[in-house]
Amino acid sequence: MIEDKNRQRTQLSDLGEFGLIDHLTKNFKIKQSSTIKGIGDDAAVLKFKNKIVVTTDLLIEGVHFDLSYMPLKHLGYKAVVVNLSDVYAMNATATQITVSVAVSNRFPLEALEDLYAGIETAAKIYNIDVVGGDTTSSNTGLLISVTAIGEVSDDKEVYRNGAKPNDLLVVTGDLGAAYMGLQILEREKEVYKVNPSNQPDLGHYSYIIERQLKPEARKDIVKLLNDLEVKPTSMIDISDGLSSEIIHLCKQSNVGCDLYEAKIPLDPQVISTCEEFNIDSTTVALNGGEDYELLFTISQEDFPKVKANPNFSVIGFIKEKSEGIHLVTRAETKIPIKAQGWKNFND
Amino acid sequence: MIEDKNRQRTQLSDLGEFGLIDHLTKNFKIKQSSTIKGIGDDAAVLKFKNKIVVTTDLLIEGVHFDLSYMPLKHLGYKAVVVNLSDVYAMNATATQITVSVAVSNRFPLEALEDLYAGIETAAKIYNIDVVGGDTTSSNTGLLISVTAIGEVSDDKEVYRNGAKPNDLLVVTGDLGAAYMGLQILEREKEVYKVNPSNQPDLGHYSYIIERQLKPEARKDIVKLLNDLEVKPTSMIDISDGLSSEIIHLCKQSNVGCDLYEAKIPLDPQVISTCEEFNIDSTTVALNGGEDYELLFTISQEDFPKVKANPNFSVIGFIKEKSEGIHLVTRAETKIPIKAQGWKNFND
Repeated sequence: MIEDKNRQRTQLSDLGEFGLIDHLTKNFKIKQSSTIKGIGDDAAVLKFKNKIVVTTDLLIEGVHFDLSYMPLKHLGYKAVVVNLSDVYAMNATATQITVSVAVSNRFPLEALEDLYAGIETAAKIYNIDVVGGDTTSSNTGLLISVTAIGEVSDDKEVYRNGAKPNDLLVVTGDLGAAYMGLQILEREKEVYKVNPSNQPDLGHYSYIIERQLKPEARKDIVKLLNDLEVKPTSMIDISDGLSSEIIHLCKQSNVGCDLYEAKIPLDPQVISTCEEFNIDSTTVALNGGEDYELLFTISQEDFPKVKANPNFSVIGFIKEKSEGIHLVTRAETKIPIKAQGWKNFND
Repeated sequence: MIEDKNRQRTQLSDLGEFGLIDHLTKNFKIKQSSTIKGIGDDAAVLKFKNKIVVTTDLLIEGVHFDLSYMPLKHLGYKAVVVNLSDVYAMNATATQITVSVAVSNRFPLEALEDLYAGIETAAKIYNIDVVGGDTTSSNTGLLISVTAIGEVSDDKEVYRNGAKPNDLLVVTGDLGAAYMGLQILEREKEVYKVNPSNQPDLGHYSYIIERQLKPEARKDIVKLLNDLEVKPTSMIDISDGLSSEIIHLCKQSNVGCDLYEAKIPLDPQVISTCEEFNIDSTTVALNGGEDYELLFTISQEDFPKVKANPNFSVIGFIKEKSEGIHLVTRAETKIPIKAQGWKNFND
């Protein structure tokens, strides 16, 4: 929508693969002592004292993002962040990423430069090294595949399977904003199609739009938990929505859970936008996804360490498996939580 | 071409993301002691004593492969092998991979099962663990993104930048076969379009077709070099063709090179097929690509250890940088070697 039509367009074929990779990664600096060799050989070479964690995610145009409202710089940033979120969910420190990009010829070099500027910004802010990747052509759209690596010491690592009955269920930040931001962007796209000269005022929605277009991973929470001397008994990041993440934690920990509707943290913009769209805000928080907050469980004895902290909301209790997984509504009724899952194959 | 039209077709949407990943990876076994946690958490957890190497590659339908003659099982196998080849080029031991796949709804579950069967076969043969991945939908074709991890001790690691003047340039196996196999497959595809009932006899081309459809990575060479107590001064794998790999080695090592045309190893099927297509076999070896052989340099003192070995061909000498990079032809003339590079963006 905000494309500058007069910008220079350099054809990708003018550079070739090697020139292209060199060009796009020339500003990338190595910052981590664990990086022995970054881009430029058959493989990157890394050295760690501790265990490492490895995670990978694929973002595909038309499935995971829509370039009509997602600026390429933000897309590059988001592609990194969604992977780092998985590293932090292991209570680990993110250290390196590799990035593979496929683009069709409809993208000029300047578009790829924007994408890599977003990747570089994320690498700077999260203090990680870009140590490898691949740039290739596609016959159709744009896609980004990122693999993230992190380091974690034996006394810090947290899995999904450690939750115990009577543990507290805690979530960071607030939920549902990224999903409602997407609803606003989709609505504006439809308005734009009818009237391209319309200049929307999206100031009322700035927080929820930013949560969709430029999410952050909770690196700060890993540090905070460490400072507070709290080691979660289990942890997962919220990428698909609270309900499916709770189900993952409970299944892998072999436990049940009571989630309190009244305790789910919601930003005022989410509440007002849900009212505007006539959607139930609890449904949005449970199934919206893309929040990239952390969901974890702690022993009750750690409660004093987290209770006054505005970063954390205690939203439920872990139960015996036989008691099932339930939402306790504001009206004090219990409803079983079911995975809404992921519907990309259901188009 | 050899698709069974009566095979069962299960829609991917019947499973959803989590059911799909569970289903496709349920047979994958963990074999490496360095794998602490494989698929099933936010990230895999690994532990190494030594340095690790990390490399990633993206294969895209219509750019890197054509499903009209590439069986999906072979494609899964090849996607793993091309990444392992980069690990072996560091003189490292491959240990883990992550695999991300995007498919459109035109693929039934059974097609993905074939693809993952190929991945599983490669994992077994090369003794690596599949520790993570992502399966998602695409609006168009199929793509596979693989990240491979390996381990290498400080006294074994080999980079591209260690070649010294007077070193010998050595290549494994033979060159140009994968490219000529592709020419045969492309020709048969055109024949098939005109006459679908035609049953081609490809027996004469079995070696070169296999080199295209089911390449192998030279894990055996890493072991052999170790057994022979030869540590290359530099090494690279041949994915884009001998000429561009020689240029990479020379540029990064800051040296020149004389490559002897008469010494380039060619299989008799490559020679006869080149004659049939009226293509110069040296050109094919220099620019064909996808051979996944290893190209390395050794000190002259190591020559006795490799000279009688049928796995190795000494094809040239490293020179001072000022002497340039040349092909010494059979007629004893010197021609500068130029990168043909990679033309995927030039369509």
